[in-house]
Order: sequence, then structure tokens, then C-alpha cells
Amino acid sequence: MLSRTLLQRRLQTRCLHVDSRDRLSCFWTPTESLNKDDIKIENRHNYLVKGGFIRQTHAGIFHLLPLGLRVQQKIEALLDKHMRSIGAAKLSMSSITSQELWKRSQRLPEDFDKNPNEFFTVDGRRMSDFLLAPTHEEEITTLVTGLAKSYRDLPLRLYQVSRKYRNELRPRKGLLRAKEFVMKDLYTFDATAEAAMETYSEVRAAYDAFFTELGLPFASAQASSGDMGGKLSHEYHFTSPLGEDVVLSCGCGYSANQEIGPTDACPDCGSPLRSTHAIEVGHTFYLGTRYSEPLEAQVSAPNGLPVLMHMGCYGIGVSRLIAAIAVMTADNKGLRWPRSIAPFSAVIIPFDGVTPEGVHKAYDDVQTVCDAVIDDRDKPFAWKLKDADLIGYPFIIVLGRRWMAAGEYEVQCRWDISLSRYRTSLAEAVSTMIRQLH
Amino acid sequence: MLSRTLLQRRLQTRCLHVDSRDRLSCFWTPTESLNKDDIKIENRHNYLVKGGFIRQTHAGIFHLLPLGLRVQQKIEALLDKHMRSIGAAKLSMSSITSQELWKRSQRLPEDFDKNPNEFFTVDGRRMSDFLLAPTHEEEITTLVTGLAKSYRDLPLRLYQVSRKYRNELRPRKGLLRAKEFVMKDLYTFDATAEAAMETYSEVRAAYDAFFTELGLPFASAQASSGDMGGKLSHEYHFTSPLGEDVVLSCGCGYSANQEIGPTDACPDCGSPLRSTHAIEVGHTFYLGTRYSEPLEAQVSAPNGLPVLMHMGCYGIGVSRLIAAIAVMTADNKGLRWPRSIAPFSAVIIPFDGVTPEGVHKAYDDVQTVCDAVIDDRDKPFAWKLKDADLIGYPFIIVLGRRWMAAGEYEVQCRWDISLSRYRTSLAEAVSTMIRQLH
Repeated sequence: MLSRTLLQRRLQTRCLHVDSRDRLSCFWTPTESLNKDDIKIENRHNYLVKGGFIRQTHAGIFHLLPLGLRVQQKIEALLDKHMRSIGAAKLSMSSITSQELWKRSQRLPEDFDKNPNEFFTVDGRRMSDFLLAPTHEEEITTLVTGLAKSYRDLPLRLYQVSRKYRNELRPRKGLLRAKEFVMKDLYTFDATAEAAMETYSEVRAAYDAFFTELGLPFASAQASSGDMGGKLSHEYHFTSPLGEDVVLSCGCGYSANQEIGPTDACPDCGSPLRSTHAIEVGHTFYLGTRYSEPLEAQVSAPNGLPVLMHMGCYGIGVSRLIAAIAVMTADNKGLRWPRSIAPFSAVIIPFDGVTPEGVHKAYDDVQTVCDAVIDDRDKPFAWKLKDADLIGYPFIIVLGRRWMAAGEYEVQCRWDISLSRYRTSLAEAVSTMIRQLH
Repeated sequence: MLSRTLLQRRLQTRCLHVDSRDRLSCFWTPTESLNKDDIKIENRHNYLVKGGFIRQTHAGIFHLLPLGLRVQQKIEALLDKHMRSIGAAKLSMSSITSQELWKRSQRLPEDFDKNPNEFFTVDGRRMSDFLLAPTHEEEITTLVTGLAKSYRDLPLRLYQVSRKYRNELRPRKGLLRAKEFVMKDLYTFDATAEAAMETYSEVRAAYDAFFTELGLPFASAQASSGDMGGKLSHEYHFTSPLGEDVVLSCGCGYSANQEIGPTDACPDCGSPLRSTHAIEVGHTFYLGTRYSEPLEAQVSAPNGLPVLMHMGCYGIGVSRLIAAIAVMTADNKGLRWPRSIAPFSAVIIPFDGVTPEGVHKAYDDVQTVCDAVIDDRDKPFAWKLKDADLIGYPFIIVLGRRWMAAGEYEVQCRWDISLSRYRTSLAEAVSTMIRQLH
């Protein structure tokens, strides 16, 4: 280790400080200051780039940098929790799928070779007629059909969080509409239509719980089943002027995407409808036998005869959630993550001259309440404060002059500056502020 | 919930029992009994299919079922730990990459359009000249070049665990040689050759620690740099008659892949060399300026002049590790996972008539020592014991006749049957056996 230290001293390269604590020195955060153009509402999708979360490589194709990956992992953990609550098992299906399967379900356009539409084809030596899967109804129906023989093997609820591919003609607004993106997709299999409808309701309840825990206002609305098929579907939206969907809703509880409902008066109570722009972030489909019929997905019923399985599919756009929450919550200073999915709930910024012991004590204290990271980068104190605002940690903990004089931490809250305060007990201050935020 | 229970009673479908405990009823495990052909050494790669871990969809392309995904997640967590120990940050790069980049680094064959070799191309409306990335040197060098400006931004150590694509002409032995597979790839950037060599040594030490913690005998050997370029490289191997590599080693410590070294006598001490078949599971490359030169990856040096970054790249085949460990540790009864990556360390199998309270107490006890799952499936007791042997949990905890009579658990150890015993204190019995195994 000595030689390494000498080397660093000679070259003054950055120091990788490794212990059990999270530090920005080991966490690559290449941020850039916001300019006047960035802070315009219509450009806010660019905050994720400026904040060091993502980087575009080609139109609609992105790398997730460490901060972006951490947000994605937090969303995935939250999804895992709510999928588990309905007894769903997690798997991981291949991204390469065959055109043959999609022909059997009649989801490839007839003139596919000339007009691949939103599909990406994959080719290689001795490999043709493959696709990058935009979704996995065909593959999972085939998988389950080979392995579930009897109604006793049902219900089955299987999900994954994985990359999907859709060749958007107009990819835009960063992760909001990308060609390669991450989605949570759940598929359910039941022995009867009645059981499948009940599954549909259970999943809807789990979606409500997931979006509630995310902590941002959301709404669900009746929607068109589109390419997916099936008879009943609901969308989950964040309302935002940046959204491309328009939802028509009524005080009586009726709510539907304008694509499918009347646009003048509520079909339930006749009142005038309210129109709102919204970002679609989730979609549930009751599929019935839309896929089990063409793919002959059967199990044996109690009487021994084969019956078609009744299916549902349910998606939540993980990449899109990241982008939607980023633009909806940002302010002029930068991002403002809800604590549920912030890359770190708190950043600790020590003034020059604060001892490592002081920083470690602050870290270990706050860690009992929420996850934190130490900003130990070789940068000016004022720059770090501004950078923390840009990255959007919910809490910024400053060990400044008052800490040096009287042991008082300054705890800033990115969501509500009026909550910010000086306290000697750090864990208590942060947990009180967390309670006040909810 | 009442209606659901009624429905299940009428149809006798399987019951999804959801609480904080892991249960096989919510964990899809479609196993099939082993036959005489399966247990032949040369067919053991098929155990992962029979054990319900993976399922092939097309030649060289696989779905990971819940058990397989859990093994993969355990390996990923172990990799995260050891990557963190050297200050590496985790990110997630796009799978779609451009042919243009690969032309600049001269890694595409000249007659690429006719002979795509092991590459998969991706095509779509208004999209051509793209690839599915088999590895990410070009993309990450471009990414880092755009964001690291000065030697002060180095060293940088960045890794990901993600899907890679290689169009193997002869995909075989399941995940051992697949077309779509998961790899951990680390890339390092230093300001000088000296610092880069030191990084190379640090990564090698982290690899040694990772493979040691995995718990299977491994060896590293000097190797050819192949397509990757660079001047120095090492392979990490498990020795196995199923391996396709041949390693020549000497008692003095010399060890090299037969591709690159002498085959008769040790170049270090002159003794005869020993030849062993081996499965390559990791590879480290000192790249120097192999990529930074063609891609003009420079930072400014202390004197203000631009200097090329010195790189290394380091891979561990996650899918291949799963397959290699599966075949190397299996016996005639099924898989035998080392505890470090077992889908669950222990399975709890209650005899008919054991109360839920008894099962819960066993689960909560063993959970203090290692992760466990309850086999609550509607299957015969003897079938469950056989299924547990096939799936390969290191510990099988039976609540049988002696538990009902005297509260004694039977703890079987899949690795060493002589360790199996009856005990009333479950956590103590399991932790003792874990110590004896190491």
C-alpha cells in the first residue's frame, strides 16, 4: 500500500478510499453544472445527463452510470417486495427470441421483412429470423406450457426485471422513450377465467401499493389493449404537462385514456370530463386466452380434459419511471429524488479540516436511519454543496463551522427547505425530518 | 381472501402462501427426475435443466428459472463485494453498440459483411450497422474519454454484470458455452503504465479472494491475449476433465495455457510439466494503450500535455461459473451447491402432520445462521427428499418422526453425509456443520 500512496502523492491522482462506508471517491459521479437552457421545463430530461446518472451513446440508447444504476436498483428492490406480496417468482428470460413464435401469435406484421416496424432483428452466422424481445408473452407462454401440466400447477405468477427493445421512430426525452430500456414484466396463468380475473385484481392492488410507496401522486385509468390483445386493461400514470397521454377523468371516479372513452361527458354520471396530460408508467392487461389459444397453452382440468390457461400480463417501465420522476420532481437547482428511490438518502459534506473520525461518526449515526454517502472528493466545499443539490439527495448533512464550534450538524432537506435545521443528534434529526416528509 | 380460498378448494389449485418466509409454493421449481443417461459424467450439464434452474429456448440461448436466477444473484453479490474492495464502481452499459466504434479499434474482420464471425448484428427501421456487444472495451473507453479530463480524475475502475452476446458456432454443454450469457466485466484506467500495472496486481488479488470465497479449487495461469490485445494476461480455471482448455503447470509455481507456453519442460526450473484439463472462468488483460490509442483516450498530465490512458480489462463468466460449478460438484443424486452460491443454503421438509408453528420455528431458527426455504408443496414426503437432493441445497432439514417424538431435527449435509445428525438445537447444529465444512 505504501507504494500506491507514494504514487498518488507524486501524481496527485484521486484517492480510492475503501472501507465499509460508501464514499463518492469510489463512486463515479461525472456531473456538469446546469446552464440557463437546462432549467427550462421542456429540457429537464437532460438533468439526468448533467447529474451524472445516464449518458446517451446513440439515439435512444443509454449507459446507466453508477448513480443511475443505483436508482434503478432501488426501484427493482421495491418491485421485488410488491411482486413477492402476491406470490410471484422472479426469473430471467433471454432477450433473443424467434420470429417464428411471434408469427404463431400473429404479432409480426404481414410485410415484416419490408416493414420491421418497432422490432429489432438479430442476425449472425447460421442465425436468422431472430428478434430482440420487446416483451415476453410468447416466450413465457411456451415456457410454462412445457412445464405446467395440470390445473394443480396453477396459479403461476412469474416476473422479471430486464432489458427490452423497441425501435422507436422518434426516441426522445432521454429514458422517457428509449430504444433499449428496462421493464418489470409479470405474467400470470390461471385455470379459469374467474381465477384469472381475481389474479388481475390482486395485481392491481399490488401496483397501487407499489406506486403509493414510491411516494408520488399517481392515477390509474381504463385503457386500450393495443397490440397486446385481451379485453380489459388499465394504465398507471403520473400526471405531468410533459406526458404524451391524455387522461379524461371525472369527480365520480371514472378515468380513461382519451383513446378509448368518450371525450365530452362522463359515461358513468354525465358530468363534464377533466383532461390531463400524463406519463404512462405502468400497464395491466387481462389477456384471457389471447396467447394460450394460438400457442396451445393447455393444462389438464379436474375432469382430465385439456383446458386453455387464462393469462394476464403486467408491465412497469423502470427506465421510464426514473426519467418521469426525475423531470417531475426537479427544481432550478437540480434533481430532487423521493427517498424511496434516491441513489443515497443522504450525503455528508465535511468542511475543510473536519477530522476523518468526525465524518465517520456522522456516517455511522445517519446510517442507522437511512443510507448515506460521504463526499470525500478533492473539490471545494461550496462546489460540493452545489453538486449535492444537482444530484438531488433528499438530505444534505453539513459538518460546517457550527459543527466545529458546537458539534451541531446542519441538516438540509432538498424537498422542503423549511425543515432544514441544526442539531447535535444527527440520527434523531434525520428520522424526524423523514416523518415530517410523509 | 375468502373467495380465493373457496376457489382453491373447489379447483384444488396450488396455494400461494405469502408471508416473510421463503416457501417453494411461491418459488417455481419445475424439476424432473434424473435418468440413467443424465448421471453420466459427460451429460451432467443437463442437471441444471432437470433441476429446474435453466431451460433452453434455442441453441445456446437460455431462460434462467427462479432457482437459476437466485444462484446468479448470489454470484453477483459476491462479485460486488470483491469489486468494492478495490474501489470499483458499478454501472450498466447498453447491449446495442455501433460497428463504427469496433472498426476504429480494428476488431471487426475486414470482410465483416460476408463473415460476421462471432458477432450478432442488429437491424431495424432507420437503424443499421449495430452490434450486440460481446464485450465493452470500445464503449467504455469512449464513455470515459468524454468525462475524464485530467490525470486527477484517475484511477477509474468501472464494472458491470450484464448480458453479453457471442455467436458461438458450436454452442454446447448448456451455459458452459452459450450465445447469450452473463459476464462481470471490469475496466480500469490509469495515468501511467506503472500505475496500471499496480492496478492489474490489485485486481488479480481481488480475483484470488473472490475465487477463494467461492470455495472451489482454482488456479490461475499465464495466457494468450487473443482478440483482446495487450501484452500480459492471466486465465482463472477450475480443473475438470470437462474443460476445453489445457493448462501446463510445474511444482515450482509456473503455470500457463498450453496455447502460449512450452509443452515439454518448465521454462522456470526445467522440470517436466503436468497437463490438466480446465474450464476457464475468468480472464485478466493488461491492455496498456491498445484501445486508448485508436480511440484517442487521453487525459491531461501534470505538465498540461495530453497523455494516453493505460487500461486493463478483467472478465468473470457468471453464466459459465454456474455451469462449471454445477457439473464439477454434482453426484449421482443431483446438484451439490457450495454454500457461497446455493439458491438456498437449507431446505426445510416437514413430515405430514407437522404443525405450521413447528415449521415456522425451524425456519426462524435456521434463518439466524443461513438462508432457508420451506418445502410446502403439495407433494409426498419421500418425493420432497429426493427433489432436495436433485436441487442440491447444502443442508436438508427434516422434521420427521424423531422431531414429532422428541423434538429432534434431522440435519443432512449434501456435501458430507457423515456430518448428518439429529439435534434439538437447529441453529447450533447447522452452524457447527458449516464450520466443519470449511
